[in-house]
Amino acid sequence: MGYSSKIIEEAVEALSALPSIGKKSAMRLALHLAADSFDKKEKLISAMTRMINDLKICSKCHGFSDTEVCGICSNPVRDQQTLCVVESIRDLIAIEDTGSFHGLYHVLGGVISPLEGIGPEQLEIDSLIIRLNSLQTKEVVMALSPTIDGETTIFYISRLLEAQDVKISTIARGVSFGGDLEYADEFTLGRSIKARLPYQQKQMS
Amino acid sequence: MGYSSKIIEEAVEALSALPSIGKKSAMRLALHLAADSFDKKEKLISAMTRMINDLKICSKCHGFSDTEVCGICSNPVRDQQTLCVVESIRDLIAIEDTGSFHGLYHVLGGVISPLEGIGPEQLEIDSLIIRLNSLQTKEVVMALSPTIDGETTIFYISRLLEAQDVKISTIARGVSFGGDLEYADEFTLGRSIKARLPYQQKQMS
Repeated sequence: MGYSSKIIEEAVEALSALPSIGKKSAMRLALHLAADSFDKKEKLISAMTRMINDLKICSKCHGFSDTEVCGICSNPVRDQQTLCVVESIRDLIAIEDTGSFHGLYHVLGGVISPLEGIGPEQLEIDSLIIRLNSLQTKEVVMALSPTIDGETTIFYISRLLEAQDVKISTIARGVSFGGDLEYADEFTLGRSIKARLPYQQKQMS
Repeated sequence: MGYSSKIIEEAVEALSALPSIGKKSAMRLALHLAADSFDKKEKLISAMTRMINDLKICSKCHGFSDTEVCGICSNPVRDQQTLCVVESIRDLIAIEDTGSFHGLYHVLGGVISPLEGIGPEQLEIDSLIIRLNSLQTKEVVMALSPTIDGETTIFYISRLLEAQDVKISTIARGVSFGGDLEYADEFTLGRSIKARLPYQQKQMS
């Protein structure tokens, strides 16, 4: 980089450390921020500072929270008998954004992966079992990635819950809406044929 | 957004105010930052704080600078007799990155645009004329956008400089390297035919 401002270079470096932001985009963002009014920089500073000082992990679901217990876990209107197990907070938000789930969540913080050296003890599995004992959960929805590691994790947790009177379900897998059958992978297509449903006119709603 | 952390939402808002970062990317970045170690947030805070407190505008070329006069303007090795006029600091950096220019720069801060209500007095044109009088400039290279407004600005400045003994040039316009003639617009192609050069074997270097 021929340009000679250490301050701009520092900003480029800080911005290009973010995922999917390369050197060129980071330079564009840095110059934009430099040229822009005080405001945007101030907002970034305040957001980062609050993240460092105030952001907590919810003691119940292990998602991010502003308080000791997050807004979802402490909301009495939510269905307390259904618990959705997700890999990450990003997945929690994706499901929450669909508006199709009204129960509680539990964030594992990953999946069991022998290849990457991630065992059950590094995940929030113990806390899940303890939590299920205290909640009167009727159904655990496993919303994990459809990968070998995801399947392994579902199997592992289902074994731990065998003795308990709780229904375990997994989210439906199949060809996505608007997807082209021709381009779906064999495994997905095979599963979606096996898991076929009786046709209902209401199904799309 | 169903998710209930005000802190995360604040970060999403601050990040999505940046150009070409939408709500979804901002959410991804915010969660990444939240989950990441202290470091990345700290670096962003420090970069923004330095931008607010320490970043200056070079009193000579009007680019960003860490000091009163920037590293390019204060570099005695650079060709003091050639001055490149650019619209923005981003263009300055783009040219500097090519490594093809070794003179000084002057950032106008835009181009004359009657439609957008930008007149010469809002640009660094007066300071350009004053600067040219004090420097012993032999050539002014106009590296402005090939638009009507860019052309107007070049014309305006060239009129102001008529009385001075200074050569005015514009950067070459034509079909880009690797570009397909077929898809070049008429105007560019027409100009690049009119501005044809005698073939030289060294031309590519």
